[in-house]
Amino acid sequence: MTDELKRGLEGVLVAESDLSYVDGEVGKLVYRGYDIEDLARGASYEEVLYLLWHGSLPTAAELDAFAADLAAEREVDDDVIETVRALADAGERPMAALRTATSMLSAYDDEADEADDGEATIRQGRRITAKIPTVLAAFERVRQGAEPVAPDPDLSHAGNFLYMLTGTEPDAVSEETFDMALTLHADHGLNASTFTAMVIGSTMADVYSGVTGGIGALSGPLHGGANQDVMEVLHEIDASSKDPVQWVKDKRDGGGRIPGFGHRVYKVKDPRANILEEKLRDLADSSGDTKWLDYTTAIEEYLTDQGLVEKGIAPNVDFYSGSVYDSLGIPVDMYTPIFAMSRAGGWIAHVAEYQEDNRLIRPRARYTGPEDAEFVPLDER
Amino acid sequence: MTDELKRGLEGVLVAESDLSYVDGEVGKLVYRGYDIEDLARGASYEEVLYLLWHGSLPTAAELDAFAADLAAEREVDDDVIETVRALADAGERPMAALRTATSMLSAYDDEADEADDGEATIRQGRRITAKIPTVLAAFERVRQGAEPVAPDPDLSHAGNFLYMLTGTEPDAVSEETFDMALTLHADHGLNASTFTAMVIGSTMADVYSGVTGGIGALSGPLHGGANQDVMEVLHEIDASSKDPVQWVKDKRDGGGRIPGFGHRVYKVKDPRANILEEKLRDLADSSGDTKWLDYTTAIEEYLTDQGLVEKGIAPNVDFYSGSVYDSLGIPVDMYTPIFAMSRAGGWIAHVAEYQEDNRLIRPRARYTGPEDAEFVPLDER
Repeated sequence: MTDELKRGLEGVLVAESDLSYVDGEVGKLVYRGYDIEDLARGASYEEVLYLLWHGSLPTAAELDAFAADLAAEREVDDDVIETVRALADAGERPMAALRTATSMLSAYDDEADEADDGEATIRQGRRITAKIPTVLAAFERVRQGAEPVAPDPDLSHAGNFLYMLTGTEPDAVSEETFDMALTLHADHGLNASTFTAMVIGSTMADVYSGVTGGIGALSGPLHGGANQDVMEVLHEIDASSKDPVQWVKDKRDGGGRIPGFGHRVYKVKDPRANILEEKLRDLADSSGDTKWLDYTTAIEEYLTDQGLVEKGIAPNVDFYSGSVYDSLGIPVDMYTPIFAMSRAGGWIAHVAEYQEDNRLIRPRARYTGPEDAEFVPLDER
Repeated sequence: MTDELKRGLEGVLVAESDLSYVDGEVGKLVYRGYDIEDLARGASYEEVLYLLWHGSLPTAAELDAFAADLAAEREVDDDVIETVRALADAGERPMAALRTATSMLSAYDDEADEADDGEATIRQGRRITAKIPTVLAAFERVRQGAEPVAPDPDLSHAGNFLYMLTGTEPDAVSEETFDMALTLHADHGLNASTFTAMVIGSTMADVYSGVTGGIGALSGPLHGGANQDVMEVLHEIDASSKDPVQWVKDKRDGGGRIPGFGHRVYKVKDPRANILEEKLRDLADSSGDTKWLDYTTAIEEYLTDQGLVEKGIAPNVDFYSGSVYDSLGIPVDMYTPIFAMSRAGGWIAHVAEYQEDNRLIRPRARYTGPEDAEFVPLDER
């Protein structure tokens, strides 16, 4: 026990984890030792979930069984859809709606009231991961005045979400791009939302509680949400009719910051940004609409020329994810919920891993209040 | 930065707080310097909320305004009640139902989407605290096949809850006892649920997210729930027709532990247990039914004679709260939700206090996974 205050717990080691590692100096992210570029390019999100939850990449037979189990769990109870409708009618924010709907799912999981361990957490987590896209797409559809689209078990996790969102099966490049985006966001060491899920899981609460808490943490402006900022800037540039480089120059001359550049950990270009930039190029090739690609490329080149990247302020994952999502027809305020939809896989993995050698997480606060306050009854105050 | 692993963050100081302090050696608990016994006996739960949230005990005029604001916020939207009905129909557990219903409340708070600070957190927290009893009582009523009872703004926070639960205005001793129980559970330094709310709040998420997360953490068997264990033991004793002391003796001879004795912090009798024991006596006097009082008194005397209390294994708050709640007609699986209903006041206070000098909470994990795993495509696995 020490009396040093660890503000924000910065640098404090709370656990050991086999799940993911970030090397910010060279721009490397690994899940269980596999480079994120290999996983994004060579594995589906389902394979990545299997890797995170079960420790190794699946064989073809293992993947078939796993993906089928996941797909079979996509439907949600009608009452959950009714609550989603009520939330949309009330104008609820997407992250808050996702928090409520995810919490509600536990009512329809008979296993949720059993004492949990890491394995039960993975089984329940599979159901949560399967159903989050369903409630999210339903919320978006209802909000747009359309009817929810039932999940299609023959589609991939990524493809089915885009199908439920739009009512149309996505083309190959859209499905592949969205699948990659899910893989890229699935885990990233400890962060406030992953840690929230772990603290809740450390009480041996069901993992519905942990994921619900993670969504709450990710909804905070200091955590999720930066990908929305980038897209809002791109839309502002578009509306201004200015050249993107001129817009950025004016913004910086006025003391403004350009979102999507710089990262707490990465001192070089975020490996996830490289991959998304590639996919943005593929989407532009496929659609013929190169606007966002032109804007982002021009801005990145300009800021690189200005020496930012040399100073370690390089494009991060958010710089490209927004324009990728926009190209897929996803509204701006769904970006953070989609982040949650992917990251839920990481939250569940961390909770299950932590519970295998569990210890209740409970730090201390230093009491700085009065020592002996004399109580005065109400009528004498 | 140190490489020492702080399992469970035991002993790690994460924040400074003026809110509450526990001295386990002498059995003392204070809120902002006031002894818990003075507060429980001399102040209402509304006064305690004011103290925790606003820093000082209210004057009569301040209390009138505060209590009126709180009472005016008790009603919840019909759609929340519909979701509560769906949860009850699905057989959802009370803590999980409370988690979902509390999360849903944000949809009906226009302020919930504004950037938060400590003051916004208190305003939103007041609405949450006012509404939790309403959704909890509605859930219990529906589960019992009855209709929800609308809140009565003329009753106190404690009295109104018992009224909504039973449909009848409580007598004075019941209301006073329940009010005391709320005060006794309102705060207790950092613990897993309070810390969960703080981690979520540190992202500047709305406090609906923090309280929802706190409920999730408190639902874990390693955190909330011990008061249920005590009551289950008392019922077991009752069903066994054995003398309570003989039952306890047999249980301990068989290697069993008696719940409600011993506490991580308190080495002497928990001050909250003293007060609840007194109130159990008052309730027994009032009803003429002394069974639980006789049982608990006999067990405490026996275990004291056996030298447990001398060894620091003394009655804790849970040893008496169960029989108090049972005497008030509250079902066993509502004890932890009632704990949450009270502790929400503390969660909100801690989040608001932390946000006044906020720092995102984000510890580290030590990566123990493979270093360089070679990716093998699916068809070659």
